[in-house]
Amino acid sequence: MADRPKVVIVGGGFGGLYAAKAFQGIPVDVTLIDKENYHLFMPLLYQVAMAGLSAGDIAAPLREIFRQHKNIRTLLGEVSAIDVEQRQVIYNGGVLPYDAVIVATGSDYNYFGHDQWRPYALSLDGLRNALEIRRRLLSAYEQAEQEPDAEQRQALMTFIIIGGGPTGVELAGAIAEMARHTLPEDFRVALPSQTRVILIEAADRILGALPLDLSEKARQALTKLGVTVRTGTKVVEITNTCVVVEVPAGVQERIRCQVAMWAAGVKASALSHMLHERTGVALDRAGRVQVAPDLSIPHYPTLFVVGDMVHLEHAGRPLPGLAPVAMQQGAHAARQIQRRLLEGQPTEPFRYADRGTMATIGRAAAVADLRGRHLSGFLAWLIWLFVHLMYLVGFRNRLLVFVQWLWNYVTYRRGVRLIVDHGQQSREGRAGQAAATSASVVRQDPP
Amino acid sequence: MADRPKVVIVGGGFGGLYAAKAFQGIPVDVTLIDKENYHLFMPLLYQVAMAGLSAGDIAAPLREIFRQHKNIRTLLGEVSAIDVEQRQVIYNGGVLPYDAVIVATGSDYNYFGHDQWRPYALSLDGLRNALEIRRRLLSAYEQAEQEPDAEQRQALMTFIIIGGGPTGVELAGAIAEMARHTLPEDFRVALPSQTRVILIEAADRILGALPLDLSEKARQALTKLGVTVRTGTKVVEITNTCVVVEVPAGVQERIRCQVAMWAAGVKASALSHMLHERTGVALDRAGRVQVAPDLSIPHYPTLFVVGDMVHLEHAGRPLPGLAPVAMQQGAHAARQIQRRLLEGQPTEPFRYADRGTMATIGRAAAVADLRGRHLSGFLAWLIWLFVHLMYLVGFRNRLLVFVQWLWNYVTYRRGVRLIVDHGQQSREGRAGQAAATSASVVRQDPP
Repeated sequence: MADRPKVVIVGGGFGGLYAAKAFQGIPVDVTLIDKENYHLFMPLLYQVAMAGLSAGDIAAPLREIFRQHKNIRTLLGEVSAIDVEQRQVIYNGGVLPYDAVIVATGSDYNYFGHDQWRPYALSLDGLRNALEIRRRLLSAYEQAEQEPDAEQRQALMTFIIIGGGPTGVELAGAIAEMARHTLPEDFRVALPSQTRVILIEAADRILGALPLDLSEKARQALTKLGVTVRTGTKVVEITNTCVVVEVPAGVQERIRCQVAMWAAGVKASALSHMLHERTGVALDRAGRVQVAPDLSIPHYPTLFVVGDMVHLEHAGRPLPGLAPVAMQQGAHAARQIQRRLLEGQPTEPFRYADRGTMATIGRAAAVADLRGRHLSGFLAWLIWLFVHLMYLVGFRNRLLVFVQWLWNYVTYRRGVRLIVDHGQQSREGRAGQAAATSASVVRQDPP
Repeated sequence: MADRPKVVIVGGGFGGLYAAKAFQGIPVDVTLIDKENYHLFMPLLYQVAMAGLSAGDIAAPLREIFRQHKNIRTLLGEVSAIDVEQRQVIYNGGVLPYDAVIVATGSDYNYFGHDQWRPYALSLDGLRNALEIRRRLLSAYEQAEQEPDAEQRQALMTFIIIGGGPTGVELAGAIAEMARHTLPEDFRVALPSQTRVILIEAADRILGALPLDLSEKARQALTKLGVTVRTGTKVVEITNTCVVVEVPAGVQERIRCQVAMWAAGVKASALSHMLHERTGVALDRAGRVQVAPDLSIPHYPTLFVVGDMVHLEHAGRPLPGLAPVAMQQGAHAARQIQRRLLEGQPTEPFRYADRGTMATIGRAAAVADLRGRHLSGFLAWLIWLFVHLMYLVGFRNRLLVFVQWLWNYVTYRRGVRLIVDHGQQSREGRAGQAAATSASVVRQDPP
């Protein structure tokens, strides 16, 4: 079948996965290339970090997903560039010629020019970091258990989350809940119920993408769990022992803490700059590619970009970096390639079918904006659970996550509280962290 | 309760765990110290390495196990010595005074003076190595999928297991089974069914601890799965690209391979040498402590040693390093401490209740010697499954393992085929490994 069109999909996240699925059984030869061998269900990654789920429960091997679709080949490799003249994808193992390509490499966390903060405030950007966050969190309690001084113990149990979007809210809620419900019985000296969780947001409210009333409901739910929500607060420095914040009046405050987490902003994957250089396509401030309405790059009708790395306006605002957007765009790009290469039809513009936005705070607490219907509390939480189970890839993962959620709900326990030191990152990045045993809040006037 | 006796248990494996359980509700203050925060169910560790289970499914947080027993405190720390004069346990966070102590730090894999082989032939000695073995194995197939040369592909799919005890047999069987049943559909270029699995054993038969007929049954089952069983074969060299073996006639043979695993022998944990230096107790050749019949160290009536690091004769042979031995010894030592410290009674000698020995080869294939009754095949396998589920710690783990076994049995799939590079070990130890793409067998005469 040498004359079948060749399609390369770069990235096995939601965008790439749904693009590849749309090619199942279609007479094109698809190569799905990713630097990992699995699709990761990012919306539940925080539960891996919070010891509620195992890595394997939310990751599905890409080969497993497409094993019965012989026209879809999976390749483990990292793409460095796309040669748009020669029509080939360049990766660390060679080149892949293509007739059409879909770039879906998503986004990275944005430290806004402060990459030196990266090792101190980890972001939830993959399995490795999620497991490292879990290790740091649990290690902090282990240190507290061996710390004779009560004030120092309190200090070890202070956690700061930077960024009040859905991920920050989920992390803050989960830590507070674990501290209140799961850990107290485990320790004899440390008192996990005294844990301080501080959620820092630069804007004047958390969950800025949701309506005002839901944002307020989320704040109330977090506060009820014991989280200190600090809006209108900017981070100006992060070291391995503290976070320095600035409130609007210009006053700086130094919060000493044991573990900080970064959930403050994203930028498009590095491949967007490569695309800009090679095709001249415009990028927005976050590095996202300003695609044509059909998701292709202007003047490159078979070069598509989907998911978090795309800037496309919808109702006057750029589409958010959410899983449903990426899924729909992936499938759309795949259909357009079929129209163009197989059917000789013109492409159609992408239209986002917005089914709503939601965020979970904790047990029986979530907020959801479902096409204008605002829900909160238990019902919103049940919908959140159902939707996330439904979109998890593979029956096995669905079953395992369901069983564990049920288990966690009934027992309040989190089963995967394992401290596994995978070396390197923890040793290098946190070398000085063990010394950070004091976490008092010291108010400072600006110099 | 300042006058309650203080007991320190060093190690949270089977021996330490069952010792601690025996103190539940007893008026002594127990500190269980381990360098990990979890109890690991070692008999199923090979299934984590073989991508059938997640780490969290076979590990239970020690704090979780004892959370409701307020007289048992868990401590994360590494013990370096026991000061038998001052009666205190010395660990990396300080000292623990004791009235009685149980040392249960188990065994390490023994490379018989060739520690330079350690990074090339990993042993299954903990979660970290198990996950690294999984990564190496799956990465080999990913490399094979991208290798254009058929002979090289075959080379990448050659795996050598050194040591024909239960662990080696389980690993060999599981790799062969995965290669035959799980992986073929996943790949388009590599042919996992061509995988070569070579099990090397120095003695004249595998499973030397089992009766001759079961050993032969196991060899037949392995051969049927496609494993090459080479008994009477000694390993004389391991590098990052090959294993050199010597057959009895003195002929050396160089087998190039992608991944080697070590399951060839054990020695007592390093603490046994410390005990020898401090108490003068005799050690056997494997460094195991020659305890008194009650499991105490001669002349130190409240210093007990249990589990894999103990040398104790039973029916003329030293007791094997098996989980049931460690469990029974842990409970026995705990009871003796109670007799001595609480009841003022003399101690009793340990008697091993031998319920049998078994090993599994794969799906519906196992061998079991149950007090002289020799079983093999499906029935032995069912008993193996049942016994292992029963001894898994915690209902959650039991449920998750059961669900996944059922899933694996029905679908032939292994869900956790994730390549997660945790850095360091893989980068350092295997730097040259990527180059090891040829695996031909070259016969060489000795020089």
